[in-house]
Amino acid sequence: MNEIEIFSPASVANVSCGFDVLGFCLDSVGDVMRISKTKKPGVTIGRVTGQSLPKDPLQNVASVAGLALVKEVGCDFGFQIDIDKKIKPGSGIGSSAASAAGAVFGINELLGAPFTRNELIRFAMEGEALASGAAHADNLAPVLLGGFTLVRSNASLDVIKLPNPSELVATIIHPRIELKTMHSRAILKPNVPLNKAVEQWGNLGAFVSALYTNDYELLSRSMKDKVIEPYRALLIPKFHETRQAAIDAGALGSGISGSGPSIYALSKGEETAIKVGKAMESHYKNLDLEYQIHVSKVNTEGIKIISHS
Amino acid sequence: MNEIEIFSPASVANVSCGFDVLGFCLDSVGDVMRISKTKKPGVTIGRVTGQSLPKDPLQNVASVAGLALVKEVGCDFGFQIDIDKKIKPGSGIGSSAASAAGAVFGINELLGAPFTRNELIRFAMEGEALASGAAHADNLAPVLLGGFTLVRSNASLDVIKLPNPSELVATIIHPRIELKTMHSRAILKPNVPLNKAVEQWGNLGAFVSALYTNDYELLSRSMKDKVIEPYRALLIPKFHETRQAAIDAGALGSGISGSGPSIYALSKGEETAIKVGKAMESHYKNLDLEYQIHVSKVNTEGIKIISHS
Repeated sequence: MNEIEIFSPASVANVSCGFDVLGFCLDSVGDVMRISKTKKPGVTIGRVTGQSLPKDPLQNVASVAGLALVKEVGCDFGFQIDIDKKIKPGSGIGSSAASAAGAVFGINELLGAPFTRNELIRFAMEGEALASGAAHADNLAPVLLGGFTLVRSNASLDVIKLPNPSELVATIIHPRIELKTMHSRAILKPNVPLNKAVEQWGNLGAFVSALYTNDYELLSRSMKDKVIEPYRALLIPKFHETRQAAIDAGALGSGISGSGPSIYALSKGEETAIKVGKAMESHYKNLDLEYQIHVSKVNTEGIKIISHS
Repeated sequence: MNEIEIFSPASVANVSCGFDVLGFCLDSVGDVMRISKTKKPGVTIGRVTGQSLPKDPLQNVASVAGLALVKEVGCDFGFQIDIDKKIKPGSGIGSSAASAAGAVFGINELLGAPFTRNELIRFAMEGEALASGAAHADNLAPVLLGGFTLVRSNASLDVIKLPNPSELVATIIHPRIELKTMHSRAILKPNVPLNKAVEQWGNLGAFVSALYTNDYELLSRSMKDKVIEPYRALLIPKFHETRQAAIDAGALGSGISGSGPSIYALSKGEETAIKVGKAMESHYKNLDLEYQIHVSKVNTEGIKIISHS
């Protein structure tokens, strides 16, 4: 195999109750990446469309992640990465994770897949570290493994794939302001009240249980965040109104997607998810602020191969 | 039915990663309670053996919990509670929870069971509040529902029963010092570092997942506590040595049972659990401190009816 074209999906991290540990993979939004073998060793960035991204291999998350993998295996040829970047950087739906995970996935395939998808996470982390200042696997894990994932430990990269109740459909509204993860991380307090932390882990435990038992009502009751959301909500215009509109329109829950500014909702069934999208945009329509709506099933597979040769 | 005799079991709360939310029920340790109808309305404490407990109905957790139930249903007769108290108060294996849960369970049965076991938790909470100063359902839930339980919310008493990997066996060592829950609660800090809280909820999410998938290795990796244990360990003689001895002897994990001083371990299989018990007592044998060892399967049923008439 000399060339591979892949779909590297967007993802939603945190999912209200699981800051830095929980995430799920989207299906209708993602980048298209082509990775090709080159004679010259190393990893280079080729054609970039859709968004403007750094061409310097040491400044681009895709090549930085790819280089981490190449450095470990050692090989006498190289790779070029072409990116059709459809996920906007700073949108809160895992733009850098899609680039980093896509790069290592593609290169791994061209090398004959020496690593499992789970093992690839640690290479992709180097790209994430460049993008966000602190490396977290909560977007990378769902992009590589698909479905819902839990990062038990970011330090040891102990990542678990969770089950996916089949009727869940996500709605995302992306207001066109850019929030750098490092800025939305800086607004957080270094300490949290113990009683709020207890609420949070009670909710996360219940959320995980609900995924196993297809208990949509329990999922709904668990999608709460009193630890992170109160601070990050300050950075997102009309957050509370939009979240409430989603709930009122029938969403099981809604909150900040990753570090924002995108707001996600999860609903039972596509019909409700579409209705929820309409409700969520109602507060943006009258603002002089562009936005985009995505409705997507949970992508249980993660990165998909489009073609190879 | 005029009289009922029940076994009201001990329980382990927190289970390292689930402070105030997680718990499981023991099978080989528990109180025997007899609840009988009386002509005189109200709830009285009759014969108490095993331990010395308050006879004043307003000072005894069993009668306080029972009164909460009786007050709600209203009835023109009353109840007497006889207790053979085998769980030592202040031992950290849910002594007050067994009393409170046993009382409401027995009275509910004598009333024709108007409430489910889950619904009884809120009445038993009134007994727990008397015992610990702050009411938590993390011991009551496993005593009433059996197996492993998760309290999603202490405020709304949203309690979930979790599955129970069949080979899990608990070992408990109870050093004979008494720790009041309110004292071991007072030693905790009101705030926790966000990064420690994230580790904790990553572990709890993984623990819940592992219960569903019978993943003993993942259970083992998840039984960590960097939030509460560092403080409460100070109150327990030889805690770190005992915990380490349990792990070295093959336990999946070990930590403080509830608010201590008991230390619990979970092992795969009874043989290992017995070996773990021997290892745990090695550090107590040379101290001038009494202790007790319990080895117990997880009790999946909770409170059991011994006889009724």
